[in-house]
Amino acid sequence: MEDHIRFDIADHALMLLDQRLLPTRKSLAVCRSVGDIVTALQTMVVRGAPAIGVTAAWGCVLALEDVVRRGDKEWRAALDAELDRIAEARPTAVNLRWAVERMRAIAAGFDGPASELAPLFQREARTIQQEDIATCKALGRAGADCIPDGATVMTHCNAGALATAGYGTALGVVRAALEQGKRIRVIANETRPFLQGARLTAWELKEDVIDVTVACDNACALLMQKGMVDCVVVGADRIAANGDSANKIGTFGVAILARHFGIPFYIAAPLSTIDPATPTGAGIPIEERPYEEVAILNERRICPEDVPAYNFAFDVTPAHMITGIITEAGVLRPPYKDSIAAALKNHSRR
Amino acid sequence: MEDHIRFDIADHALMLLDQRLLPTRKSLAVCRSVGDIVTALQTMVVRGAPAIGVTAAWGCVLALEDVVRRGDKEWRAALDAELDRIAEARPTAVNLRWAVERMRAIAAGFDGPASELAPLFQREARTIQQEDIATCKALGRAGADCIPDGATVMTHCNAGALATAGYGTALGVVRAALEQGKRIRVIANETRPFLQGARLTAWELKEDVIDVTVACDNACALLMQKGMVDCVVVGADRIAANGDSANKIGTFGVAILARHFGIPFYIAAPLSTIDPATPTGAGIPIEERPYEEVAILNERRICPEDVPAYNFAFDVTPAHMITGIITEAGVLRPPYKDSIAAALKNHSRR
Repeated sequence: MEDHIRFDIADHALMLLDQRLLPTRKSLAVCRSVGDIVTALQTMVVRGAPAIGVTAAWGCVLALEDVVRRGDKEWRAALDAELDRIAEARPTAVNLRWAVERMRAIAAGFDGPASELAPLFQREARTIQQEDIATCKALGRAGADCIPDGATVMTHCNAGALATAGYGTALGVVRAALEQGKRIRVIANETRPFLQGARLTAWELKEDVIDVTVACDNACALLMQKGMVDCVVVGADRIAANGDSANKIGTFGVAILARHFGIPFYIAAPLSTIDPATPTGAGIPIEERPYEEVAILNERRICPEDVPAYNFAFDVTPAHMITGIITEAGVLRPPYKDSIAAALKNHSRR
Repeated sequence: MEDHIRFDIADHALMLLDQRLLPTRKSLAVCRSVGDIVTALQTMVVRGAPAIGVTAAWGCVLALEDVVRRGDKEWRAALDAELDRIAEARPTAVNLRWAVERMRAIAAGFDGPASELAPLFQREARTIQQEDIATCKALGRAGADCIPDGATVMTHCNAGALATAGYGTALGVVRAALEQGKRIRVIANETRPFLQGARLTAWELKEDVIDVTVACDNACALLMQKGMVDCVVVGADRIAANGDSANKIGTFGVAILARHFGIPFYIAAPLSTIDPATPTGAGIPIEERPYEEVAILNERRICPEDVPAYNFAFDVTPAHMITGIITEAGVLRPPYKDSIAAALKNHSRR
């Protein structure tokens, strides 16, 4: 599943599989402008930190096309402003800014008219997209060794093909373990309020004929107590320099429960998810999303009118609760401050 | 709110507020037979251990009416069989069996024709219903002292007026604390899959103008980490002789998180919820309910077709994680084996 984010050069449009409608409907959302891209990111047509990064990169391509069309002489300032709009669409996932800054660096290193920058922009966006798949596969291979044969892997939210350019991070680890010939089962926490686990993880694993069972988020303690969970593997939206990891709301609770029951808890994420500029999890902004995402389910109210609801979209799992951080550079182990710094240093040398 | 379970003598019917339709619709379900009662219990028209007990008692009244109507000479055997059907409608809540056995004891102590038992049955059912409200109020007063002024109380599922004959257990504690003049806020965990927190707890607290905010079950760790939760008070469906307490799925996880964050965790339940015949939580049967309750939400699939889902309805919180068990006989403290035995002994003396 690598075609859920597809740029159509002839049509000047980014085609996104609308993840809000899965698993009942497969429908494409078409983005032709920066406004479309920002809306798609904010309304979660596409979500998942690496997929957000890839979408943002293509958003930069659309931004440049718009700037070229306008024929503004001050095109660099105009482009920068558009790129800022994309970078600020959502606050938590660092891959969004990371991808936009990679595109901005291409513009900064280019000396010529805006129209001639377009092919370079397209090439960089395509590179980001292709690299993401390769990164997921490398990450998957590294992580697969952490998963014993016959294991049941619990995952939260969707850190799969749909959350990346393809293959997935946490689910990339599952796919790689299966490719090693291991027998693996997955428990997908349904992940309220957006239900990425029930709707997306279950869908993409079923498409790949991988054994998956959905569980309500609150069943986690019972399933672990019953010995039904051998390890937890989840994605991340931003990893601080000390290893504290932001991921979908509920991840932190799963980590505490895993610790209680002595179950290994892994984060799987590309190095681009690590934000060395954020020293600890305390510096990671937690997005608050609209109340209605909690209060209204399939077009019907589940909360009475005028009763408020919390909708924090992420939480931060402290580094000391994480057994390992699975990256394309291998499985990082505590102390993460050191292992992360070393991995980033080696990576930047390549 | 004490009219959601109402027996209409003239109409020979138990009128139940259909809790499946709240908060969007207030609609009555009418039960005229044991079959209707069993269906109402199993489909959760009415739920909550004490409310299940009260409903079962009125179900016994309908059972006797049916036996009288049939004119069977072997009416005692026929009545016993009907009472067994009611007692077996759901496996976890012990109040169901407790109420049926109270009614059965009335029949056992009665020497005469079945038709003359009817008024005694009605009187006992009414007594069970009225006692339940008085018990909740006594329990609430005892528990209110555990709740500091200005506290935010997290609760899971609905242990409120709707789960009892009125006033509630966990929410009875909240109501009593408010009656003491304390300022109290409530966080209602939405409680998947049936959403008793979002639909029922939020609804009944809003009706009483009590400050309530709904949270997805998986937000619990973040809210506790942020210092937004001062204590947890939940109900119970069965308490073993050692204090292990079965309650709605997710309660055990909340207890582990509360322990992690050093937050007091209380069970609030009448003594009738204690089952001295069950030595520990290992002996409490955990009901598994239909897959569709998880997979289909407001008539739309949230899981793909052919992907299974777990639907364990309860979990068991070990006694050592419980700060206190709030009952009408006061707040029981560890070691629970002793405090429970003493409370039951004193209670049976009354």
